[in-house]
Amino acid sequence: MDAKVIWNGRMTFDASADSGFHVRLGAEPEVGGDNDGFRPMEMIAIGLAGCTAMDVISILSKKRQEVTAFEVVVHAGRAAEHPKVFNQALIEYQVSGRSLDEQALLRAIELSAVRYCPAQAMFNQLMPIELHYQIYEDLGEGQRTLVKSGVFTPAV
Amino acid sequence: MDAKVIWNGRMTFDASADSGFHVRLGAEPEVGGDNDGFRPMEMIAIGLAGCTAMDVISILSKKRQEVTAFEVVVHAGRAAEHPKVFNQALIEYQVSGRSLDEQALLRAIELSAVRYCPAQAMFNQLMPIELHYQIYEDLGEGQRTLVKSGVFTPAV
Repeated sequence: MDAKVIWNGRMTFDASADSGFHVRLGAEPEVGGDNDGFRPMEMIAIGLAGCTAMDVISILSKKRQEVTAFEVVVHAGRAAEHPKVFNQALIEYQVSGRSLDEQALLRAIELSAVRYCPAQAMFNQLMPIELHYQIYEDLGEGQRTLVKSGVFTPAV
Repeated sequence: MDAKVIWNGRMTFDASADSGFHVRLGAEPEVGGDNDGFRPMEMIAIGLAGCTAMDVISILSKKRQEVTAFEVVVHAGRAAEHPKVFNQALIEYQVSGRSLDEQALLRAIELSAVRYCPAQAMFNQLMPIELHYQIYEDLGEGQRTLVKSGVFTPAV
């Protein structure tokens, strides 16, 4: 897979990859940027969130779960000193739906963490990653109620 | 740092992060997607390319190099089996300018690789990364000529 960034002056880059899409990268004014695009490390955290999110939604769909809303948040901690690597992460899965099966969700999270998601497989080798989840019952008309939340530890 | 992906149906997600920008993620039709956005692992390769590109352009600018065009390409190899992690990478730095100093470029690449770029620091622990560079003399009017190319191995 190829990814390319082309300089557009100062700290601004046009980024693209094999799929043909484009996104702009930029930096903070403190480092000479114009705050006109994603920070590179944000791309990496988004890649991690998207990778596991696609696994989980795909598995939930195969398990015929009626999901009505779904989001994944990655909270990444960074070292204080250069090169300021990610040194821990918390991945939060928030799923809304109708009569969702907690075991189906946990199995989906587990399969992503230990088998399918390349980003998790890579970052698991570098730092501790906590997996949290919240299950909401969708009450219709934009209303939902929390029915279950917890921390999941895959049996790797 | 927080990154979030919100499900938009099928395999489509809206992704955002602390900087406030948004980008769409999508998947191949073969896995139920609509090819309507970046693949998650592309985001990670872009993060790596952008991270080192920002370091290098920033250092070249401090070294008063007259850069007229600059791009960084990441070629990432992936494992054949799930979870299909990145298992090798080649980062290619293509710099055009006027009378560019090869040593200045090599020092910039080295500082990024061993000191500043968090993505490189992380991925260096997971896989071999080759660093290639090409220096072009900018002849004006969109013309350039290759003056130097090579492989750089940081003395870590």
